Amino acid sequence: MRILSGIQPSGTLHLGNYFGAIQQHIELQAEAGGRDRAFYFIANLHTLTSLRDADKLRALTRDVALDYLALGLEPERATFFRQSDVPEVTELAWYLSCVTGKGLLERAVSYKDKIAKGLEPTMGLFNYPVLMAADILIYRSTMVPVGKDQQQHVEMAQDMATHFNVAFGKEVLTRPDWRFSKAPIVPGLDGAKMSKSYGNTIPIFLPEGMTEKQAWKTYFASIVTDSKGVDDPKDPNDTLMLLYRLLDPSGAAELEPAYVKGGIGYGDVKKRIHAAYSAKFAQFRDKRAALAKDDAYVEGVLEEGGKRARAVAHELMREVRETVGIAAGAWAR
Amino acid sequence: MRILSGIQPSGTLHLGNYFGAIQQHIELQAEAGGRDRAFYFIANLHTLTSLRDADKLRALTRDVALDYLALGLEPERATFFRQSDVPEVTELAWYLSCVTGKGLLERAVSYKDKIAKGLEPTMGLFNYPVLMAADILIYRSTMVPVGKDQQQHVEMAQDMATHFNVAFGKEVLTRPDWRFSKAPIVPGLDGAKMSKSYGNTIPIFLPEGMTEKQAWKTYFASIVTDSKGVDDPKDPNDTLMLLYRLLDPSGAAELEPAYVKGGIGYGDVKKRIHAAYSAKFAQFRDKRAALAKDDAYVEGVLEEGGKRARAVAHELMREVRETVGIAAGAWAR
Repeated sequence: MRILSGIQPSGTLHLGNYFGAIQQHIELQAEAGGRDRAFYFIANLHTLTSLRDADKLRALTRDVALDYLALGLEPERATFFRQSDVPEVTELAWYLSCVTGKGLLERAVSYKDKIAKGLEPTMGLFNYPVLMAADILIYRSTMVPVGKDQQQHVEMAQDMATHFNVAFGKEVLTRPDWRFSKAPIVPGLDGAKMSKSYGNTIPIFLPEGMTEKQAWKTYFASIVTDSKGVDDPKDPNDTLMLLYRLLDPSGAAELEPAYVKGGIGYGDVKKRIHAAYSAKFAQFRDKRAALAKDDAYVEGVLEEGGKRARAVAHELMREVRETVGIAAGAWAR
Repeated sequence: MRILSGIQPSGTLHLGNYFGAIQQHIELQAEAGGRDRAFYFIANLHTLTSLRDADKLRALTRDVALDYLALGLEPERATFFRQSDVPEVTELAWYLSCVTGKGLLERAVSYKDKIAKGLEPTMGLFNYPVLMAADILIYRSTMVPVGKDQQQHVEMAQDMATHFNVAFGKEVLTRPDWRFSKAPIVPGLDGAKMSKSYGNTIPIFLPEGMTEKQAWKTYFASIVTDSKGVDDPKDPNDTLMLLYRLLDPSGAAELEPAYVKGGIGYGDVKKRIHAAYSAKFAQFRDKRAALAKDDAYVEGVLEEGGKRARAVAHELMREVRETVGIAAGAWAR
């Protein structure tokens, strides 16, 4: 078994990212049971479909590496690397594209969504699922944790694996499975789903130089509630309780009866949320600050991961090249 | 300056290929003036858009290498290599695709033509011009000799180079020029354009084991004429004279007055054509037979060429990766 998880270097992570995906993905390290079985890559080649700024891409790549290492990804238990350090994925993508109908890609929901949102309809965006399939297949991944919006991409990778095997009459590529991450509802400051595009997020790591007092004002004090008074009975599944339960389940369970009955004010719960947030992420924040001072270590982790991943990819690519008839040195045979 | 010529490994070459393209392409070696300035590659990655048979692709690759070396491509004057030995072209193709509108590809004439001819509309076929642009741009090619049907592909490579440079605000990729090969009319056995798909070809090299007598019967005696008698005046631009002029210009010029006036029979001219064919290609045939016995030499030529081409590609790719922000080792900067 091999679990594969692709990470978009997309900027400041928030609680929606953490509780909706990162936490579960990092937990998979344990389930995989060995660093050759848990592959995590930073999808910097994919980011080029929406970013044309070298400095920014390098900074985003660095940030997301720091984030994941701080949040619990352990180089001894997982192979962590940059997508671009295994450039063979682009070669495999070419072979896959030769056995993949254009119609399959025309039906990709995420492409249509991105165009509808105003992204430029480039070939990169259109080819996105082919490169993603190559990323999955090149490591013989057996399981890919996904959100609902990514399910179709793994199904496409399944299709491409089968098309390739059928076209060349040989079982070379492994059909991957996908699994939904348990994704709880994470409400934003305004009660809607927490999302960068809604501007209602609470970051996992406070912006550089922000004090706790400023954080209180900017985030926790600003969570929108209705106008119930302290003594009014309250909804145990309102924005505040949903957030509190994610950050401190036992604290939330303890508070709930009184909250429902009345006698607990919103301001009080907001303070509890802030305290729970600080307590939960303090260790991660400290770790991230330490890592940020040790670029050589982080670069070393990614390079070592890249080498391990590339060795796995080379094995598959040898077989793929032989199968399609372009094996290097094939001449003499 | 660098001249780049891509060669499709498409099977038995015929006189139409020779006089329509190969001869001119090989002559460019001299014009380029040095093996670092004349790059010829066997486009085996592109062939995968229409072939799914490893043994056949390997055989076609070998055959076309033998053909070109026999017909005058000189490893001391040109860099001759397999496309697949520089897999970085697929990586560059990804970067290009991220700055290339899908609409540009939708307008590709050759894609529409191939679909109209019944080829399966795969992503490989659709992405074909992007990979071709990468092939051109990765060697900073300045001139690409093309047939009419390939002109649009080089224009697309020009577009992609400009899009990339504009998107990243840096002159990284060199816009290539194209040049039409002088392509004379080469009539087939039936007088229509000589083409594999019309089944009217005369091969450059006789099929293994075919005698001159069989060749006479199969090809030269079978050239279609009208029913004019020996003494009738004849058309100096009929199928026979067009072929004779290509194979032996001075012999044809000498014959022409009498041919136009009358007194020369078709059978006589057919014999002259056969003799001119044998004389012209005898040296090539002998060379090809010798090369076919020396796989190690031919493989050595291609490997050496691949190494030289790859070194040029690596230089460009270093700059490209730096420009887009995925430079290996970029972390520490």
